[in-house]
Amino acid sequence: MLRTALGQMEVIPGRPDLNSRTILDMIEEARAQKAEIVIFPEMAIPGYLLGDTWEQRAFLRDCEEYGKSVVAASRGICVLFGNVGVDWNKTGDDGRVRKYNAFFVAQNGRLVGGEKYPYPFRIKTLHPNYREFDDTRHFYSLRKLAQEMDMAVEELLQPVAVEISGRCLKLGCILCEDGWSEEYNVKPIETIHRNGPVDLFINISASPFTLGKNNKRNRVFSKQVAAAGVPLLYVNNVGIQNNGKTVYTFDGYSTVYDADGEITDYCHPFSAGLKIVELDLSASAKKRPCVTVPDDRDIASIYKALHYGASKFLSAIGMKKVVIGISGGIDSAVSACLYSTVLEPENVLLVNMPSVFNSRTTRDLAAGLAQNLGCWYTVMPIQEVFEYTVKQIGRTPVVNPNNNSEFNLNVSSFVSENIQARDRSARILAGVAAAFGGGFTCNANKSEMTVGYTTLYGDLAGFLAALADLWKHQVYELALYLNEHIYGREVIPRKIIDLVPSAELSPEQDVDQGKGDPIVYPYHDYLFRAFMEHWNRATPEDILTWYTQGVLEEQIGCRPGLAAQLFSSPAAFIEDLEKWWKLYCGMGVAKRIQAPPVLAVSRRAYGFDHREAQNQVHFTSGYQKLKRELMKEIG
Amino acid sequence: MLRTALGQMEVIPGRPDLNSRTILDMIEEARAQKAEIVIFPEMAIPGYLLGDTWEQRAFLRDCEEYGKSVVAASRGICVLFGNVGVDWNKTGDDGRVRKYNAFFVAQNGRLVGGEKYPYPFRIKTLHPNYREFDDTRHFYSLRKLAQEMDMAVEELLQPVAVEISGRCLKLGCILCEDGWSEEYNVKPIETIHRNGPVDLFINISASPFTLGKNNKRNRVFSKQVAAAGVPLLYVNNVGIQNNGKTVYTFDGYSTVYDADGEITDYCHPFSAGLKIVELDLSASAKKRPCVTVPDDRDIASIYKALHYGASKFLSAIGMKKVVIGISGGIDSAVSACLYSTVLEPENVLLVNMPSVFNSRTTRDLAAGLAQNLGCWYTVMPIQEVFEYTVKQIGRTPVVNPNNNSEFNLNVSSFVSENIQARDRSARILAGVAAAFGGGFTCNANKSEMTVGYTTLYGDLAGFLAALADLWKHQVYELALYLNEHIYGREVIPRKIIDLVPSAELSPEQDVDQGKGDPIVYPYHDYLFRAFMEHWNRATPEDILTWYTQGVLEEQIGCRPGLAAQLFSSPAAFIEDLEKWWKLYCGMGVAKRIQAPPVLAVSRRAYGFDHREAQNQVHFTSGYQKLKRELMKEIG
Repeated sequence: MLRTALGQMEVIPGRPDLNSRTILDMIEEARAQKAEIVIFPEMAIPGYLLGDTWEQRAFLRDCEEYGKSVVAASRGICVLFGNVGVDWNKTGDDGRVRKYNAFFVAQNGRLVGGEKYPYPFRIKTLHPNYREFDDTRHFYSLRKLAQEMDMAVEELLQPVAVEISGRCLKLGCILCEDGWSEEYNVKPIETIHRNGPVDLFINISASPFTLGKNNKRNRVFSKQVAAAGVPLLYVNNVGIQNNGKTVYTFDGYSTVYDADGEITDYCHPFSAGLKIVELDLSASAKKRPCVTVPDDRDIASIYKALHYGASKFLSAIGMKKVVIGISGGIDSAVSACLYSTVLEPENVLLVNMPSVFNSRTTRDLAAGLAQNLGCWYTVMPIQEVFEYTVKQIGRTPVVNPNNNSEFNLNVSSFVSENIQARDRSARILAGVAAAFGGGFTCNANKSEMTVGYTTLYGDLAGFLAALADLWKHQVYELALYLNEHIYGREVIPRKIIDLVPSAELSPEQDVDQGKGDPIVYPYHDYLFRAFMEHWNRATPEDILTWYTQGVLEEQIGCRPGLAAQLFSSPAAFIEDLEKWWKLYCGMGVAKRIQAPPVLAVSRRAYGFDHREAQNQVHFTSGYQKLKRELMKEIG
Repeated sequence: MLRTALGQMEVIPGRPDLNSRTILDMIEEARAQKAEIVIFPEMAIPGYLLGDTWEQRAFLRDCEEYGKSVVAASRGICVLFGNVGVDWNKTGDDGRVRKYNAFFVAQNGRLVGGEKYPYPFRIKTLHPNYREFDDTRHFYSLRKLAQEMDMAVEELLQPVAVEISGRCLKLGCILCEDGWSEEYNVKPIETIHRNGPVDLFINISASPFTLGKNNKRNRVFSKQVAAAGVPLLYVNNVGIQNNGKTVYTFDGYSTVYDADGEITDYCHPFSAGLKIVELDLSASAKKRPCVTVPDDRDIASIYKALHYGASKFLSAIGMKKVVIGISGGIDSAVSACLYSTVLEPENVLLVNMPSVFNSRTTRDLAAGLAQNLGCWYTVMPIQEVFEYTVKQIGRTPVVNPNNNSEFNLNVSSFVSENIQARDRSARILAGVAAAFGGGFTCNANKSEMTVGYTTLYGDLAGFLAALADLWKHQVYELALYLNEHIYGREVIPRKIIDLVPSAELSPEQDVDQGKGDPIVYPYHDYLFRAFMEHWNRATPEDILTWYTQGVLEEQIGCRPGLAAQLFSSPAAFIEDLEKWWKLYCGMGVAKRIQAPPVLAVSRRAYGFDHREAQNQVHFTSGYQKLKRELMKEIG
């Protein structure tokens, strides 16, 4: 039996001092529990999402030093951990000192595994450079090293031999993406196994939570493990890390796969701690019972990630209090409920900021919500300053000082709407938050973010957009989940859920008359998702093709028959499609550039993993041809 | 003689329809001018900085189609151009369809060069994945392809043979970074030459302007060309492209290097057009006279890039009018002058927004500036709404609806300062801009951006931060340059240049008493630059090391003796250093996440090339040791 400890630690990005302290404590704990081997995640010492901090040589030296302290602590126990491996004598492709995303194996105060290998650590082979990952910018992969050494990368994929309790064990040491090799022509698990034999695979990861990823990992890893017939331990960190525009939660979910690829144990998600696992690596090992891993694609998983992410983000930036503008609408209500699961009521301040366009209905709903949550509440109307601003802008003469010509600016109703939105956020909420000693939240959802149906410096402002990775229908789902499962009572009044979604910035958005947003969420949520989240991103050409083929709803996943119901003609369908595509590629981009960080839960959140430029809107020639044909048929 | 046309075209990113139109027109022009060969830049059809548009299959098909129209137009002329090369049967590392950054050679309606090569186009070998470049995310490099094919990359680096006027010419076809191979272990020019013979090298590029880059290119390219003894044509595009957070200008500067590596001709920077060049490729070629390329590191180059960039950005986003808040200070004055070189006076509106803290001095200077520029001008004071806001926030009771306890928020003087800044931008300027039918500018400079000495939704707001890649001392330089060289008169009143820089948000920032910003620009500009721009980014550990060694000023480039003059003791030096480092890594990051796009001129601008995370501030153990020693010496 091999007594193993999975070190599912919280990694604080950029703090090798704190992380090595955590590791040293966990090593002590593992030793006390008689573990023979203890495993920590990828980049456990520096953290993973650090932006360009990797360019600071002093930081690299620091990580090396703290790494040495971990190696020194490995007396009597085998310690496996991720850190940056630096070759001070070589450069990367950018000419800076060469860095590897590395896997260290330490035993009795020394590094193990450097025999017949260019370094005393193993190197990550596959570097993800898609999604939120940026490995290629900073690290030199084993693939590049092999090419430089004029070798096949396969020759370098060898197990590490360690002696544990008098027995030689061959470990297949891989890092994160090395286990996700489907799309690569290099297959680390398969190759190391072929170069083996291997007794145990160990995948150390720094892998953010996104919906459905664990389910997929279990499928992908199980298959490879079963093919190799060798157990695998997966160790991932918890905590949050961000790359500026997007905040990722790390759920850990460290997992034990047996030689058949079945899961026999796992660590609780979003929970730091050491887990002891007894492994029988002998040929005669008795089959252990399998466990079932919960599905991670439901609203409960979303809630868990958002709750954890918001909580950790607040502590990471040292924010203890939040201010939330509540309109009586669904987004701000869900936001208020979410933060109320994270902070004590005395640290949450809800602010309602009515103008004449806000109905009694929504103002009462806002007050009711505040009462249900029991947090601080205040009403600060914007009407007076709004009117003052409209007058100041419209009545102050604009002059040409050289010829004394002058004119007055015209404040249209559209301009007035945005004045209200900015007055709420930039004038009141920002001031209130500063006076309260905290930050104010951005309550925008993903549907609004997609097409810029938000006001810059208005409702798009805030220190974090915690709901901006949820489509509107998911915001509703979350509302119901919060009421039913978290609060166990109707903390969000039912009427907020039933009300037509509206910005209430003009008489045209009167909720009491059932008037509201121009976005028809049951359809547009799915259209926007096709633009934004589909792996092969849909464009108007794809959408129109599906529409003409009668498979649109099936392809985008909305309710069958919806398009026909909403659009009386192909011309109306096309008009709607072009309008939103232009907003998504145009004003939406301009606004997202200045939007707050988004808390990610989906497979693709706005920010670093949705790279975009403020470029001109383009319709492909294929689209234009389809459109012409469709219009001709009608004409 | 080979009659060659350099197609220094303006590339519109994301518009293959427009770009292929430009190419077709230029081919016609080249043909009319009897050119035998015409060359267009890298990614001339799709554009280069497109974010994740590369994931849209319809867009890829579109680029292919437009590419075919260019190939079809190559009757009687050899056409060289960059486009995306798609292999629909293979995938990239991300599992999406495989894309190459490709070099196409077309002649008589057909592609040339596919013999003994896996594709009918050449593939970029070296993929920059540093700075603002993101090639690895989207494209499969020749290095990866070679590894997949189990070949040495060198075997694939072969010239392309074309027949021109009955003579076989061997062209060394490379793309951009392939010419910048110093840091790579693959050397495309050297290798293709060795695999040759080669008659002519052609480097097609999409290379943004940054200060000093052309000077460096000329050194790097000349050296390789001289070693090979073969002439090289460098063709780069003009226009602007952006990646959301950062806007890059492309200066073209297409260049002819003779067989000795000397420059015999070049295209005017920032100017689109076809240039005809006669090349003698025979062994007995007579040496042509060399030309001198102007230095591109001076303030004139900065001005040229900013003027071009601002102008092109306005037309790219369809903005015809701008509103500029002018305080009577230097940044807004330079911003107003810059935009006045781009737009007619009737499309520029300057707004002065005084509170009681704004001196008569600066208000008069603002009015004087407006008069000098002859654009629209208005004064909209913020005092009333500012006072109203302070009262509204401070006097509206905050209640707990459950127990009716209540309290009042306290609006401190610091909170008041930011209220003023936001009132100016989010209330007045945003409203005025919308009513005027344009956008409002962000006038922040790089020094402020570095440490977040700006107010979010206040002076950090705007549609573009045109001066945010200039250190404060460069803003002054630009002011002098504008007066002297662009306007030829004192359009920026001398007093604005001489005045102490100040935010004028409190009595502590009274310019008439010589009080102003906490940043001592002659020192901090250089300290911040060391943090941010140095290739090996400096951290407090480096700074303190240099300080103790007495080489600080030399290392960071500021005036000798300045540190001793500013800081009476090491303790004072350390306090200052830690204060700004914390702001740079802390609040500065949070603000930059929501900052407007920055117009880049330096080797490193904020945005996509300064990747950063909202992480905890870290001081390395090396720094802490140095600090302890230094403080002990004193104690």
